[in-house]
Amino acid sequence: MRNVTSETITKAFLDYCSDDTDPRLKFVLEKLATHLHDFVRETNLTHDEWRKGLELLYAAGEISTPERNEFILFSDVLGLSSLVDMVNSPDDGTPSSVLGPFHVLGAPDVPVGADLKGDNEGTTVVVGGMVRTPDGAPIEGAELEIWQTADNGLYSNQDEAQPEYNLRAHMTTGADGRYLFSTVRPAPYTVPDDGPVGELLNNTGRHPWRPSHLHFIVTAPGYGTLVTEVFPSDDPYLDEDPVFGVREQLVMEYQKRESTDGLPDDLVAKDQLDTPYYMVDFDFVLSDNR
Amino acid sequence: MRNVTSETITKAFLDYCSDDTDPRLKFVLEKLATHLHDFVRETNLTHDEWRKGLELLYAAGEISTPERNEFILFSDVLGLSSLVDMVNSPDDGTPSSVLGPFHVLGAPDVPVGADLKGDNEGTTVVVGGMVRTPDGAPIEGAELEIWQTADNGLYSNQDEAQPEYNLRAHMTTGADGRYLFSTVRPAPYTVPDDGPVGELLNNTGRHPWRPSHLHFIVTAPGYGTLVTEVFPSDDPYLDEDPVFGVREQLVMEYQKRESTDGLPDDLVAKDQLDTPYYMVDFDFVLSDNR
Repeated sequence: MRNVTSETITKAFLDYCSDDTDPRLKFVLEKLATHLHDFVRETNLTHDEWRKGLELLYAAGEISTPERNEFILFSDVLGLSSLVDMVNSPDDGTPSSVLGPFHVLGAPDVPVGADLKGDNEGTTVVVGGMVRTPDGAPIEGAELEIWQTADNGLYSNQDEAQPEYNLRAHMTTGADGRYLFSTVRPAPYTVPDDGPVGELLNNTGRHPWRPSHLHFIVTAPGYGTLVTEVFPSDDPYLDEDPVFGVREQLVMEYQKRESTDGLPDDLVAKDQLDTPYYMVDFDFVLSDNR
Repeated sequence: MRNVTSETITKAFLDYCSDDTDPRLKFVLEKLATHLHDFVRETNLTHDEWRKGLELLYAAGEISTPERNEFILFSDVLGLSSLVDMVNSPDDGTPSSVLGPFHVLGAPDVPVGADLKGDNEGTTVVVGGMVRTPDGAPIEGAELEIWQTADNGLYSNQDEAQPEYNLRAHMTTGADGRYLFSTVRPAPYTVPDDGPVGELLNNTGRHPWRPSHLHFIVTAPGYGTLVTEVFPSDDPYLDEDPVFGVREQLVMEYQKRESTDGLPDDLVAKDQLDTPYYMVDFDFVLSDNR
């Protein structure tokens, strides 16, 4: 197309795609090109700004490794990762939230009621609830992957002082759908801010602190996989999460308890809990529309 | 913002930017976030598609070097680079076109009329015209950077068999604004298609062949810099340039000539030209609105 103009270039792009292009790919590319072209047209983007954007992408490539993916982080701080979570979350289940880069495979199997705290410093928290259907029926055989930071804000794979699978577990529900464990309160931490994403945050006056959270992946046969995080209601960064992971339904109250009376008998650490400790009650609702 | 939804996330993103953010940066980010968010909302982008997009960016980072920048290539084949050229092109001058990755600094100074062909194989072309204002006045002291492929479709910095500055020159116009040189006809070539951009082209049935072209950067005191390319009217890829660089005004006719009669006296190779050769007449119009 030799007479392409700023108005016709979007159509020219689409016309270049062959007729046998996968229809979904063509649709996604049409929307992508339209929005990127509109972005350039509506901003009258200068060559310097275009170069700056490409420099940020190049720098992201240079700093990225399989363990530290700056492109995902860009997606996170632009709200794209969370938006993808949202548009794929069924209305009748627990909302999903960002997976993040700290999940590892191979966490040890533990029984319902296990203690993850062990020798970890910090405030004790007892977390429990039910994995259930939207109608409230317990889901037997649901599997939970659980991971979180230690009290210093670091995950075990970021911190050589922690055992390999510290504060990571894999648990399977019984017939009553219950899950339960004692652990240490997770700590806020910053997203990596020494690369181009940090530059963007800095230039827009945004801080890199994520509110503390527990990560979960919950799966059960016949249900879609739920990847989510849950947050304490008193976290200072709850209303300014740089990666937009917080949802009202994922905020849970840390209830202060002075006594271990009334704790379930299958809580392994029941008789060794320091007081006061905190109690968290949170159900995971799995949708079969996921 | 803990009650962020797929509808409010764009506003949440903007609210996170501090009040003292540079206004232009905030405007550009507002448009970028709005369009990327709309893209996700309108496509209901799946997690798999999101992952695929991020994998392409990661792969672009891995294959990129200062000499081969896959992000620029993505921008090129999506039409973004050309669109940025277009929205920044003044209406009263020669249109700009993509710079491309093959420009190098330090090309030798040559006089008007110089021969760039030397020992290069291929069809001889004599290229000349005027650097002028929109009103037709010649511009004295305009500087032209000229670079092109050899007959094999490779630039000197891609081909060890070529001398370092083969088919590259720097020329300055005199009082009459004229430029003139003899050279070899450039050849079509493919954009690099062994990386993620090649995968995109392949999946959409697009070929990687650029029409042949001569590159120019034309500068003059008091005028904006013109970065452009000019294309022969008989090139087979003229209507399907993968990087959208062709403009009607940048297509020039290669006029076949059987005799050297009438060629300007200052054409250094005038008496050694093989016949037939081709003649190209093209004026560069510099705008002071650039």
